[in-house]
Amino acid sequence: MEQIFEEQNFSEDKLHEECGVFGIFSHNEDVALNTYWGLYALQHRGQESTGIVVTDGERMKIKKGMGLVADVFKDGVADLQGYAAIGHVRYSTTGASMPYNIQPLKVYFDGGNLALSHNGNLTNAGQLRANLAKEGAVFNTTVDSEVVLTLIAYSARPTIEERVAEAVNQIKGAFAILLMTDNKIIAVRDPYGFRPLVLGKMENGWCVASESCAFDLVGAELVRDVKPGEMIIIDSDNSEPRSMMWAENKPAKPAHCIFEYVYFARNDSIIDNQSVYDARIQMGRELAKETPDIHPDIVISVPDSGTPAAIGYAMEAGVPFLEGLTKNRYVGRTFIQPTQKQRANAVRLKLNPVRSVVEGKSVVMVDDSIVRGTTSGKIVKLLKEAGAREVHVCISSPPVTDSCYYGIDTSERKELIAARCTENEICRYIGADSLHYISMDGMKRAIDKIDPEGLCCACFSAKYPDNADSVIKAEPESIIE
Amino acid sequence: MEQIFEEQNFSEDKLHEECGVFGIFSHNEDVALNTYWGLYALQHRGQESTGIVVTDGERMKIKKGMGLVADVFKDGVADLQGYAAIGHVRYSTTGASMPYNIQPLKVYFDGGNLALSHNGNLTNAGQLRANLAKEGAVFNTTVDSEVVLTLIAYSARPTIEERVAEAVNQIKGAFAILLMTDNKIIAVRDPYGFRPLVLGKMENGWCVASESCAFDLVGAELVRDVKPGEMIIIDSDNSEPRSMMWAENKPAKPAHCIFEYVYFARNDSIIDNQSVYDARIQMGRELAKETPDIHPDIVISVPDSGTPAAIGYAMEAGVPFLEGLTKNRYVGRTFIQPTQKQRANAVRLKLNPVRSVVEGKSVVMVDDSIVRGTTSGKIVKLLKEAGAREVHVCISSPPVTDSCYYGIDTSERKELIAARCTENEICRYIGADSLHYISMDGMKRAIDKIDPEGLCCACFSAKYPDNADSVIKAEPESIIE
Amino acid sequence: MEQIFEEQNFSEDKLHEECGVFGIFSHNEDVALNTYWGLYALQHRGQESTGIVVTDGERMKIKKGMGLVADVFKDGVADLQGYAAIGHVRYSTTGASMPYNIQPLKVYFDGGNLALSHNGNLTNAGQLRANLAKEGAVFNTTVDSEVVLTLIAYSARPTIEERVAEAVNQIKGAFAILLMTDNKIIAVRDPYGFRPLVLGKMENGWCVASESCAFDLVGAELVRDVKPGEMIIIDSDNSEPRSMMWAENKPAKPAHCIFEYVYFARNDSIIDNQSVYDARIQMGRELAKETPDIHPDIVISVPDSGTPAAIGYAMEAGVPFLEGLTKNRYVGRTFIQPTQKQRANAVRLKLNPVRSVVEGKSVVMVDDSIVRGTTSGKIVKLLKEAGAREVHVCISSPPVTDSCYYGIDTSERKELIAARCTENEICRYIGADSLHYISMDGMKRAIDKIDPEGLCCACFSAKYPDNADSVIKAEPESIIE
Amino acid sequence: MEQIFEEQNFSEDKLHEECGVFGIFSHNEDVALNTYWGLYALQHRGQESTGIVVTDGERMKIKKGMGLVADVFKDGVADLQGYAAIGHVRYSTTGASMPYNIQPLKVYFDGGNLALSHNGNLTNAGQLRANLAKEGAVFNTTVDSEVVLTLIAYSARPTIEERVAEAVNQIKGAFAILLMTDNKIIAVRDPYGFRPLVLGKMENGWCVASESCAFDLVGAELVRDVKPGEMIIIDSDNSEPRSMMWAENKPAKPAHCIFEYVYFARNDSIIDNQSVYDARIQMGRELAKETPDIHPDIVISVPDSGTPAAIGYAMEAGVPFLEGLTKNRYVGRTFIQPTQKQRANAVRLKLNPVRSVVEGKSVVMVDDSIVRGTTSGKIVKLLKEAGAREVHVCISSPPVTDSCYYGIDTSERKELIAARCTENEICRYIGADSLHYISMDGMKRAIDKIDPEGLCCACFSAKYPDNADSVIKAEPESIIE
Repeated sequence: MEQIFEEQNFSEDKLHEECGVFGIFSHNEDVALNTYWGLYALQHRGQESTGIVVTDGERMKIKKGMGLVADVFKDGVADLQGYAAIGHVRYSTTGASMPYNIQPLKVYFDGGNLALSHNGNLTNAGQLRANLAKEGAVFNTTVDSEVVLTLIAYSARPTIEERVAEAVNQIKGAFAILLMTDNKIIAVRDPYGFRPLVLGKMENGWCVASESCAFDLVGAELVRDVKPGEMIIIDSDNSEPRSMMWAENKPAKPAHCIFEYVYFARNDSIIDNQSVYDARIQMGRELAKETPDIHPDIVISVPDSGTPAAIGYAMEAGVPFLEGLTKNRYVGRTFIQPTQKQRANAVRLKLNPVRSVVEGKSVVMVDDSIVRGTTSGKIVKLLKEAGAREVHVCISSPPVTDSCYYGIDTSERKELIAARCTENEICRYIGADSLHYISMDGMKRAIDKIDPEGLCCACFSAKYPDNADSVIKAEPESIIE
Repeated sequence: MEQIFEEQNFSEDKLHEECGVFGIFSHNEDVALNTYWGLYALQHRGQESTGIVVTDGERMKIKKGMGLVADVFKDGVADLQGYAAIGHVRYSTTGASMPYNIQPLKVYFDGGNLALSHNGNLTNAGQLRANLAKEGAVFNTTVDSEVVLTLIAYSARPTIEERVAEAVNQIKGAFAILLMTDNKIIAVRDPYGFRPLVLGKMENGWCVASESCAFDLVGAELVRDVKPGEMIIIDSDNSEPRSMMWAENKPAKPAHCIFEYVYFARNDSIIDNQSVYDARIQMGRELAKETPDIHPDIVISVPDSGTPAAIGYAMEAGVPFLEGLTKNRYVGRTFIQPTQKQRANAVRLKLNPVRSVVEGKSVVMVDDSIVRGTTSGKIVKLLKEAGAREVHVCISSPPVTDSCYYGIDTSERKELIAARCTENEICRYIGADSLHYISMDGMKRAIDKIDPEGLCCACFSAKYPDNADSVIKAEPESIIE
Repeated sequence: MEQIFEEQNFSEDKLHEECGVFGIFSHNEDVALNTYWGLYALQHRGQESTGIVVTDGERMKIKKGMGLVADVFKDGVADLQGYAAIGHVRYSTTGASMPYNIQPLKVYFDGGNLALSHNGNLTNAGQLRANLAKEGAVFNTTVDSEVVLTLIAYSARPTIEERVAEAVNQIKGAFAILLMTDNKIIAVRDPYGFRPLVLGKMENGWCVASESCAFDLVGAELVRDVKPGEMIIIDSDNSEPRSMMWAENKPAKPAHCIFEYVYFARNDSIIDNQSVYDARIQMGRELAKETPDIHPDIVISVPDSGTPAAIGYAMEAGVPFLEGLTKNRYVGRTFIQPTQKQRANAVRLKLNPVRSVVEGKSVVMVDDSIVRGTTSGKIVKLLKEAGAREVHVCISSPPVTDSCYYGIDTSERKELIAARCTENEICRYIGADSLHYISMDGMKRAIDKIDPEGLCCACFSAKYPDNADSVIKAEPESIIE
Repeated sequence: MEQIFEEQNFSEDKLHEECGVFGIFSHNEDVALNTYWGLYALQHRGQESTGIVVTDGERMKIKKGMGLVADVFKDGVADLQGYAAIGHVRYSTTGASMPYNIQPLKVYFDGGNLALSHNGNLTNAGQLRANLAKEGAVFNTTVDSEVVLTLIAYSARPTIEERVAEAVNQIKGAFAILLMTDNKIIAVRDPYGFRPLVLGKMENGWCVASESCAFDLVGAELVRDVKPGEMIIIDSDNSEPRSMMWAENKPAKPAHCIFEYVYFARNDSIIDNQSVYDARIQMGRELAKETPDIHPDIVISVPDSGTPAAIGYAMEAGVPFLEGLTKNRYVGRTFIQPTQKQRANAVRLKLNPVRSVVEGKSVVMVDDSIVRGTTSGKIVKLLKEAGAREVHVCISSPPVTDSCYYGIDTSERKELIAARCTENEICRYIGADSLHYISMDGMKRAIDKIDPEGLCCACFSAKYPDNADSVIKAEPESIIE
């Protein structure tokens, strides 16, 4: 009897972040070890591959591999000695993810060694790559980010900072980039500030990271966000890093990715001055305010990502929050598929209802988003089978209707259920008694520390801040596989 | 620079269950695959090793290994064909856990093949082993359970059921045992019912498991608990399993392990008629009732095991439950230890406070138990550093003061902080503003479906239902390593 | 396109030894390390699995696994400390070789720990196993050798030496057994001396091994062979080991396995006083004397096992020996099968002719044996394609016509080509210009240090010294899988 | 007790080839599978890493890794479909060999995909790399060969053939290069023909390889050598490949590496029209002629590489060739080091004398070369301990006194014993009764199919055909790590 193995089918109904970055400059710390810890804290931003590169001023050493931080570096990082390091964790959307695409990238150019970690997505990489190839450039990877390295190498400006500025002024899209030369770290954030990037201070040194939760683990203090369109140069343990506003065309408003607050970032991070957890609790409250007609007995969440909003909802609605679904903490990436008979309930592998909690109850089930809709229906079915009288599904983000070009894997637009179906249709599809998405305004209100005009909500609205959709359509066919 | 790796240091402050068992008899199901799923659902009961043995009436095939179910069986179980199977997951207390100790055990005896899965601990294994050795028996493992197999083989009774009955009447201690011969499964529970064992019905077959959560995954219906002192014989898909009350000396009351409700069992299990989740919520409520003098702003939990009681506490106290600690879901078994400087906060690897939640607040932090006390203090420190004004630690079980001889790894008695210190001393040691353990009565009240006299609370009270402590002391030196 | 992998198909045309054993007793040596080296030298006797068990007088530690010595112990043996050790390398005939069958076996009995390494094959194991099972014994493996351990445990004699003697007097067949208790090593050889076993002296200690080549590597001096029917007890570094002739029924003549000299043993070993290499050279000479009508231009061998006899043949015949076949030294156990088109020449993976050597020549190709005949024909074809004018195949052993019951894997009798075909038929089958097997007398003459009556040639003659064939037929069906 | 592991210390006394290449173009064959087999046959040219890249005209797929061919491709090559493929096996001199240096290399340039396999060593790579970096090029590896790819990409010539020609006219040193574009394979050999490269014909396709032994395995016929300074373009299954003599500065004579005949190439290969095995037998004969004063009883070899010359010597001298040293066929790359006491004889792990062969004899021991001299002395000692009366060491190559810049790892010149010591000193150092190196003329005479002026003997004479030594000294400091 042949058996079928499934890979991670439960996560297919989530959007995926593509990367996390971490960098540190210090003569008094073990920079590789701190990068290891920083990446450990950022592991939720990418589980496919990871790497660390370190410089001692003369040589760069690199170690990278497919898998989790704890696995790739299971033999330690003691061989990576130096005074500056950058690292990367990566999520990739395809099974064809190849080892040579693992970041950080590292090359030799006429300025010495140069390493790069990138979170985001470039929208004009194909065009730039084609142009550079015409001038003789060769490319080793299928990673957009390699273009940035070549642009820097091709720049004729006198200093590395100016070469970087010239390079990043040519690229479009979303980027939080860490560059490392033989003796400095340069952090660059795109003019819209799509992806987060924060600066931290250690006792004797500096660090930069995608999220502030990484600072807590290495004992650094959050100083501030790197500003949209800013370049920060770190080449001294104690002097304040230098800053350069490099963007020749700065937009009027930033466009911070709102999905960081909905799902990606960790509860304990503060990005662009906004506590992520506060935003999530608040989204739940807004959702409750927007659904006054539901009178549930209890509020439950789809753990773990739906929990903060569920708690917020319960607080606002004045009903108990209970754990109606038990999560199996030992679910691995692959497993043998249940038999056909069991198939309908495969989601049980990860989530199982607690009958005594839901039986006979009118339940509000809070989740952060519905992407393809494949999982929500299965969970509703489980709850009903466990005796729930009513299941009202409340989602703490609006319907995801459009592709993201800024570093989130939204899959094909046609795979987004909300791009194809009305809310009523989705409600029927998932078998819920009612379905409620938070309003765009409600969601923005929940993120009260950020100007509502300064958020990118393109995946809900197709309003691409930099018209990326038209750029993408104009991109020539990639010359590469 | 040498680096130090740590293994799982965060779990050292918990008691550990030693095993989970699953068995199935069916000519219409893929028994190995269902056992795989059953063990998957029982993975929380043991992560060190696992195995499955299957019979087709003539041959027994076995597959086992060190590691998680998903890893050991990563190539599938398609080669394990038959109509009955038993499996096992095991936690072991020592690094010296050897592959030959992995269960199920399988031997050949004059009745054919015989396999065994055991959850529990025998208190007279050394004595029995010595006696059997004098009669010529050899032993291959250091597992107590091997004695059971030899006792069965030495029995001169005519049927396998009688041989098993004779054997188990000689053993003392805690046991939920699954035996499999070439054509039947026999499930046996000790006369006190220390460890759980439940019977389930499938469409065409029967299964037995340590917890009912395993039935949900394989699509079986919970029929009832195997009774203390009962043997259940399954040798037909559809006929009701036969039952035999085998215990020659049946105690007046059972002694169900109360720690299953405190920590071991999964929220979604029902054992001995009691919903585990209900008991935990109730423990939180009792705890709140017992601490009327605390007036917290919020209630937080040490996730995940402290969460149900925290929610119960918050409900009873009428204050919000919030996730004040973020759990890193990607923490592996081993990792590089943080540098000395970071050492104090190593627990941050797993848990990081959410500053915006706790800052300036008076916090009740609920956890299920304190064993060695090594972790609690670190968490309180993190919360204080994150700005918590007051931290009141509330524990949903009484102080663990005594060793368990019934299948729980309580470590040495001297390592139990409550065996050495008063509550006040522990409170000072962990740096809390106050420390409160639930009362024994409160805990028992929370388990409202079970007669309070029918629970084993020996680890809190040293009242060993079967005087195991004196038996253990009388045990001769083991003849084995 | 699906690809087919083959496992070791080139060795299928050889007989296979089943084991090698090594033991050492010394308070001044690292006994585990020396056992490692001893097994390394005996690796040719078994490549499937290996293990080492060591005692320090109180505890026995064991390490074993599937694979080569260098792989199984790739992390060293530093954790195996003690003053005596035994080890084992094993070849197994079936793919179903299970980890729990790996030797040494180790059990606990009423005399403490007991470990065993066995080279050979018992012919009455099934009967003994059935009898023991009736008395309550359980068995963990499918290894014959486990019976020996149980027989010892069941013996009521007062000393371990007497218990061993009682046990081995009950077993029939071929055995060179090393036993280790908590404080001594006992070496036992069967009354016929089928399998080799030699005693060596170290500066401060003693060792025993299947072949003397193991002594060269550990720096021991070959003292003598363990005699057929002898037991040697080693429990002191310096005192002469004690000897006991234990066999109640000693045959008139020994029956040393002649195939050790033909193929199994290493060139550099001396067993039962006979240099293996000398015997092989001499076999080649005898073969040349027996084939005066061939007038070859050159003599080549099927490397490596055919080479000594080929050199002997060339010396006697007065023609050059040349390496007409190049052996690929990097052939692994598994590989992707060549395409159908290439299939006929799959043997090229391992052996490729040197055209300039064989082109236009009349070639004598010497090999040590033909078992199934699957490979010989392919090699002859390669030589012809490379231009050889004539290929005369000369075999330094007689036709293998009968099964071995003494520890050699001769496969099924029906798979032995010489059991089914005449020499002429085989010659045509392999496409040779002529085929010559050495005569039985010639082969025995080549082994000039051993009484020709003291050799077992049953695989060529069906004359089983102990009538094993009738015993085997009388064996009851095994009770086990 | 800590244990020390050694890696392959026995091979440290040999020169090392750095690579083997294989390429195939065919619409009727499984090109990846044939490349797998070709590399299998070339495994002796490099055991550290291997890779295969295949094109189907649109996409290139690549698979590579550290280790042997059988290990890296243990899951097969079925996913590598296409009609052309190139592969590589690599030996590397340093432990720091990094995965990103594994060949084939593959890049994207303005002509599409481009892959490269290189055997040899460039002497002006540093200078070229520096020049290219000034023009904006970035480099991903520390492999010289990457420069070739960038030179091709920077070429402005109209066709790929011309771009390749322009590129290879700029590089100096030794190279046999296979390039693959999306639809053709281009094979290039340097103007001196340092490294071998042969062209083969299949039924429906063509292949190129470092040695002809690879053709035997894939069923191809050796057509001819690629000429020094020639480029061969294969873009059709059946049409004759096109040829272009590209070298603008063609030397008067080729300079084929003589060490291929001494040691590197396989016995069964024919390169530059010379049978490797014939040359080796002949070297032995020449050596015998040059040492008429030795009157040995027997000739033995250091297996396996010394065997052909030993056989040749024995034939010429009219004394028997015998296997005086037994080689352990199971020696792996790493092993636990013997204890101090055993240390002197660590070489026994691999080679053990056959006492009965050498005892009391005057022995000629033939080896192919002495590099560092670390092993020879140990072997002589073993032979003396085994009773050899006299040991005369005869070497089938002259003293290795100088570094190679053409793709052989000769280590530092100072590590070459013959660069520091006279023959008499070496003889005393290794403890031989006499030591004889073949004369340069004798060695060249043995290679009778090649003009003696057309051989590179620089490692024996420091006569670098292209003055590589001065080039190397003039090379600027590498800009890379």
